[in-house]
Amino acid sequence: MKRYSKQDFPLHQIRQHLETGPVVLVASAWKGETNIMTMSWHTVMEFTPALVGCIISSANHSFALIRKSKECTINIPTVELAKTVAGVGNCSGGAIDKFEKFRLTQEPADMIGAPLIAECYASFECRLADGRMIERYNFFIWEVVKAHVATSPQNPKTIHYRGNGAFMVAGPTISLRRKFRPEYL
Amino acid sequence: MKRYSKQDFPLHQIRQHLETGPVVLVASAWKGETNIMTMSWHTVMEFTPALVGCIISSANHSFALIRKSKECTINIPTVELAKTVAGVGNCSGGAIDKFEKFRLTQEPADMIGAPLIAECYASFECRLADGRMIERYNFFIWEVVKAHVATSPQNPKTIHYRGNGAFMVAGPTISLRRKFRPEYL
Repeated sequence: MKRYSKQDFPLHQIRQHLETGPVVLVASAWKGETNIMTMSWHTVMEFTPALVGCIISSANHSFALIRKSKECTINIPTVELAKTVAGVGNCSGGAIDKFEKFRLTQEPADMIGAPLIAECYASFECRLADGRMIERYNFFIWEVVKAHVATSPQNPKTIHYRGNGAFMVAGPTISLRRKFRPEYL
Repeated sequence: MKRYSKQDFPLHQIRQHLETGPVVLVASAWKGETNIMTMSWHTVMEFTPALVGCIISSANHSFALIRKSKECTINIPTVELAKTVAGVGNCSGGAIDKFEKFRLTQEPADMIGAPLIAECYASFECRLADGRMIERYNFFIWEVVKAHVATSPQNPKTIHYRGNGAFMVAGPTISLRRKFRPEYL
């Protein structure tokens, strides 16, 4: 599977990659153990600091690793990884090493201990910004402290979960720039 | 513009329409005034009760209407409404009546005072479930108390904001059901 060479990406612009609502792979590490989970219950919350909120169910094996380390990476796969994404989401890291089973490649992050996933076109290093909603909603508020994005493709074919095992694949991009006020662009 | 005839939709399945990350139109009403805003900083938070979290900036004219009424409707447009969506997002309801300006049709909701938008294929009636994150993050947690969804199209061509005035249009749907554990479907 293709590995992406990524470059630093401006933190206040990560909404360009998350706001469309793609399924993401969340990678975590704690005391030598790593794991990956699929997730698409996430939202951008602020430009600066770059905040992202997401639900990580306490039923997931990743929950403990992420809660203890207070870190994770959010990695965005494209349609070429769709079967891998479904596979990762349908087994538990308690029994297996998902990086090994799904032949995904760990790359070291710059600012945190959780690994980046080389086969994803974008990876965001996240530190817990606010954990007050975890107990009640399993809702984590992350500050993205470093962003890595491949320069190509420009409009990646991300996948978006429709439920029932079905994924919408990102279609064409249309520009309505001329309808926008300059300060809203 | 086409108006959709919608039917009751199971609350625990609304993730099928929101989890893909579409731009939505949020409609509100307070003391005879109505308004519409565009929004795509939202996430599903729970199946039952059907919780949805979203950011509504205090800079929006809708913020006061929504905060006071503690209600809104979340309406999902398709690509045919893309120019309308961009228009709605680039003017303020403080000066104009957006329903009138953009020729959108109000339909009465069943359980709340905010109107549904007839030209959207799906409309969700929302009551504030938790307002504790509004002050700090402009983050509203809604319980969807009634859902209305058109039976066709089955895989609507929703639009997903990429930033810079560009929208991704929902592409083909692929099924990976056979990769899923039955209990995860």
